Amino acid sequence: MDENGSKKKKNSGRGVSGPTNPMVTPLLTDHYQFTMAYAYWKANKHQERAVFDLYFRKNPFGGEYTVFAGLEECVRFISNYKLSEDEIHFIKQNLPASCEDGFFDYLRGIDCSDVEVYAIPEGTVVFPKVPLLRIEGPVAVVQLLETPFVNLINFASLVTTNAARHRFVAGKSKTLLEFGLRRAQGPDGGVSASKYCYIGGFDATSNVAAGRLFGIPLRGTHSHAFVSSYMSFDEIADKALRTKDGSSTCEDFVSLVQKWLNKIKWSNSFRGIFSETNQSELAAFTSYALAFPDNFLALVDTYDVIRSGIPNFCAVALALSDLGYKAVGIRLDSGDLAYLSCETRKLFCSIEKEYELSYFGKMSITASNDLNEETLDALNKQGHEVDAYGIGTYLVTCYAQAALGVVFKLVEINNQPRIKLSEDVSKVSIPCKKRIYRLYGKETYPLVDIITGENEPPPKVGERILCRHPFQESKRAYVVPQHVEELLRCYCAGSSDKKQETLPPLKDIRDRCIKQLEQMRRDHMRRLNPTPYKVSVSAKLYDFIHFLWLNEAPVGELQ
Amino acid sequence: MDENGSKKKKNSGRGVSGPTNPMVTPLLTDHYQFTMAYAYWKANKHQERAVFDLYFRKNPFGGEYTVFAGLEECVRFISNYKLSEDEIHFIKQNLPASCEDGFFDYLRGIDCSDVEVYAIPEGTVVFPKVPLLRIEGPVAVVQLLETPFVNLINFASLVTTNAARHRFVAGKSKTLLEFGLRRAQGPDGGVSASKYCYIGGFDATSNVAAGRLFGIPLRGTHSHAFVSSYMSFDEIADKALRTKDGSSTCEDFVSLVQKWLNKIKWSNSFRGIFSETNQSELAAFTSYALAFPDNFLALVDTYDVIRSGIPNFCAVALALSDLGYKAVGIRLDSGDLAYLSCETRKLFCSIEKEYELSYFGKMSITASNDLNEETLDALNKQGHEVDAYGIGTYLVTCYAQAALGVVFKLVEINNQPRIKLSEDVSKVSIPCKKRIYRLYGKETYPLVDIITGENEPPPKVGERILCRHPFQESKRAYVVPQHVEELLRCYCAGSSDKKQETLPPLKDIRDRCIKQLEQMRRDHMRRLNPTPYKVSVSAKLYDFIHFLWLNEAPVGELQ
Repeated sequence: MDENGSKKKKNSGRGVSGPTNPMVTPLLTDHYQFTMAYAYWKANKHQERAVFDLYFRKNPFGGEYTVFAGLEECVRFISNYKLSEDEIHFIKQNLPASCEDGFFDYLRGIDCSDVEVYAIPEGTVVFPKVPLLRIEGPVAVVQLLETPFVNLINFASLVTTNAARHRFVAGKSKTLLEFGLRRAQGPDGGVSASKYCYIGGFDATSNVAAGRLFGIPLRGTHSHAFVSSYMSFDEIADKALRTKDGSSTCEDFVSLVQKWLNKIKWSNSFRGIFSETNQSELAAFTSYALAFPDNFLALVDTYDVIRSGIPNFCAVALALSDLGYKAVGIRLDSGDLAYLSCETRKLFCSIEKEYELSYFGKMSITASNDLNEETLDALNKQGHEVDAYGIGTYLVTCYAQAALGVVFKLVEINNQPRIKLSEDVSKVSIPCKKRIYRLYGKETYPLVDIITGENEPPPKVGERILCRHPFQESKRAYVVPQHVEELLRCYCAGSSDKKQETLPPLKDIRDRCIKQLEQMRRDHMRRLNPTPYKVSVSAKLYDFIHFLWLNEAPVGELQ
Repeated sequence: MDENGSKKKKNSGRGVSGPTNPMVTPLLTDHYQFTMAYAYWKANKHQERAVFDLYFRKNPFGGEYTVFAGLEECVRFISNYKLSEDEIHFIKQNLPASCEDGFFDYLRGIDCSDVEVYAIPEGTVVFPKVPLLRIEGPVAVVQLLETPFVNLINFASLVTTNAARHRFVAGKSKTLLEFGLRRAQGPDGGVSASKYCYIGGFDATSNVAAGRLFGIPLRGTHSHAFVSSYMSFDEIADKALRTKDGSSTCEDFVSLVQKWLNKIKWSNSFRGIFSETNQSELAAFTSYALAFPDNFLALVDTYDVIRSGIPNFCAVALALSDLGYKAVGIRLDSGDLAYLSCETRKLFCSIEKEYELSYFGKMSITASNDLNEETLDALNKQGHEVDAYGIGTYLVTCYAQAALGVVFKLVEINNQPRIKLSEDVSKVSIPCKKRIYRLYGKETYPLVDIITGENEPPPKVGERILCRHPFQESKRAYVVPQHVEELLRCYCAGSSDKKQETLPPLKDIRDRCIKQLEQMRRDHMRRLNPTPYKVSVSAKLYDFIHFLWLNEAPVGELQ
């Protein structure tokens, strides 16, 4: 009972903001959800209490794990669910004229305040067949939520998993930058990719809108166009640069840069290495350094990395050094990244030695250009000197597998369990309102997930429990858990008295994800032939599934 | 000169609505566009007039054509371009503290009113290397537009092309339904897929939001969950159904359905074909028919298509027939679609004959379940009786190729042509402000696209013109065009006096697309080994490209 004496909690009273994308409205659903709602209403069946599970059937990218994401957007969506008069009018226009007006009055009253949502926390490592969300409520209302929920979780989980896989191959020590906005599938394909790649372990994004919406660090310097927009030094209006300590001003930074270029070209160590460098590139670098003397990072492959980009960069970096500034580094966007990064590092180290600049050898080398899991793996095998990767297309569009097969299945209605059969066993649904436990062994890693009926006693630490494969009779194992974690938690209590989880900040979701990934046994995570993680059901649930299956399946007649 | 005596036309005065997705704001861009803008401003170079081309390098899906789409969203974006104070504050926070305040005053004033956009009309069939857009304006401003423009065109063109390819395989006579919202890459991944699939030749969508935004016809009936939510006929509260002509009421439609089921089961023609059908499925179908007697279309594979779904459907359809209603048809969502559709058709035809119902044999058969170009092709080869396809995942996520490599390259600044070199010839950009003409031969199909310098005389009908491959010296051909079409048109006149094209309604873009696709020579369109369409440059432009290339490329030294 709250202060107003009302037992019914309104979700909308929870103060949760609406979805990030204002296009996520109750109309962002399939037309058949409304035709079904009408048929339920017409049969006076719309208020029947239904339980739906949201899950996927197969891990993406040929791997054996998935990171669950998208929950917060679902909670935001239903916490603010309300059909406007305009929307109801549009629905009415698109249903047969024979549909009765009472239905539209019913739609007017829907606010999801009686919908309960149980979910695995966002950022958890999850596996096929395990319900990520269990949604309970009036059957007509929960049906309306199917499409937006699946939409909001499908891509979110897919791209988070993709980011986690890229992080796994790149290794912990590298900086990972998401550069995908321009190639993403639409504006919020880009914005949500930025958000979920950050959760999956990326460090920063180029996407300013995502930086603003989610507080993700921003990164980026300049493009090839910037370099080719310069013709000569004449274009630099103001050539003066104050020293870093502010004590004096170099009136002609351009001359200082040119002096350094000549010096390294003709020094004993580098003589003959550099041919004539491109002057317009040098002008562009110099101009960029004048604008950002403390953040000078240059794209060096507009003309020729080794013959032009790197020497030009070094000349500017050395000139900056004279004034007390330390250049940040370079970005390579084409060519043999392994070779070019090693050659660049060698040169940086030689300059460090020649001019006694202790930071020069350690300057950052960023690589970009159509990187993906395979190219990162190839770079590792070859050996390279890259510190940071900028990854775009393959990451944000999930090029290797562009969709996750998330489904939303009815498992109970009016307290009656329901099963969806299929000739393909992997498509048979697990009926009943269920609980999920993750069982841990003596080591810290998870051993197995077990799904039980809602009212079965939970697995206990130190007590042996039989874990059965849901569909294969012979696959079963006893487990004595050292730690038991219940996975589904209450995020929307509906009209129940359950305590609601608060929505964690993005940073916490990211931390959870990174910790979860580290906790997994390595053989589940490897790229080549990973070991499947086991998902099981209790003995009682196993028996029940198969009882129901036999009950519903028609008996064939061989002729 | 307008009424106020001002020559400068404000785009914002054009009355163009903002982007469909409110997330498309000036911050939906890469961070480096703002760092570059600052560097340009600092060098006092920001107002230099630059020309950028937007194009792609390779047709998607192993094909030899692409449909250009996304233009309207770009025009809407720049017609309403304005950075808010909040946005400027955010940019400032994310640039070094040393950045001067004058720059932020400059950002405050940007409104794109001096940006000119020339583009190929949306819905046109286009080819690699041809500029889809030419954008002219102050270099700093046009840079800021790069990322949103590429984002808005990349996926739009890709998914339109994908839809066109699916239409090509399915054939003109089939109904194509886009069912992809739940599997799309985020909310507007779904909404824009619906829009662009419609442009590419689809007939309808399941996505209600897209139906409302764009006026696309909506389609959909019910899901497996609807079927499995029913247990028995007891759940149907109101069993009465008025006849179609309103003359009388059948008080117990349920009994009528059951009577028909028994009748067909034991009729001489069908005896022994049907075993016991699933009663909860029959209850669900009956309930749905009571809600939509004029639009009865049933999903028949929840239990078993041939043994349960089809006979149950027929019983309901026959009962409806008694009351003057014609059922619409069925949907198959699993199994062997070719076989099941043929068996279903046979049965429909037998019933038509047995009960003299002239429409029954022609009822619609819709197929869904992970369809794509390959499965449609396989169905055609096998023979089938499907009238309509519901296509989701593979269509809307462009599963076969999840991104189009759209790029945005500087081709001129301060009237000076610029070229971007690369060791990979296919990545060298074509410099200069250019025009594009499509040349048609004696037949009605296009022969070749030719790119010329801005000020070259246009190709003339009946006059021989040399068309050269831009990079391969030996590839060239004379053409005598029978019809010449200039492709780039002015969509934003900026501060010029040019006449602006109006943005056509969606229906016109769709019609254009369908007409354009029909006009192409068949060998460019086929799925297997299609013939590349030729894109050429004028002799003058060819010479200029190669002059500039030699000028910019460093001369190597073999050692």
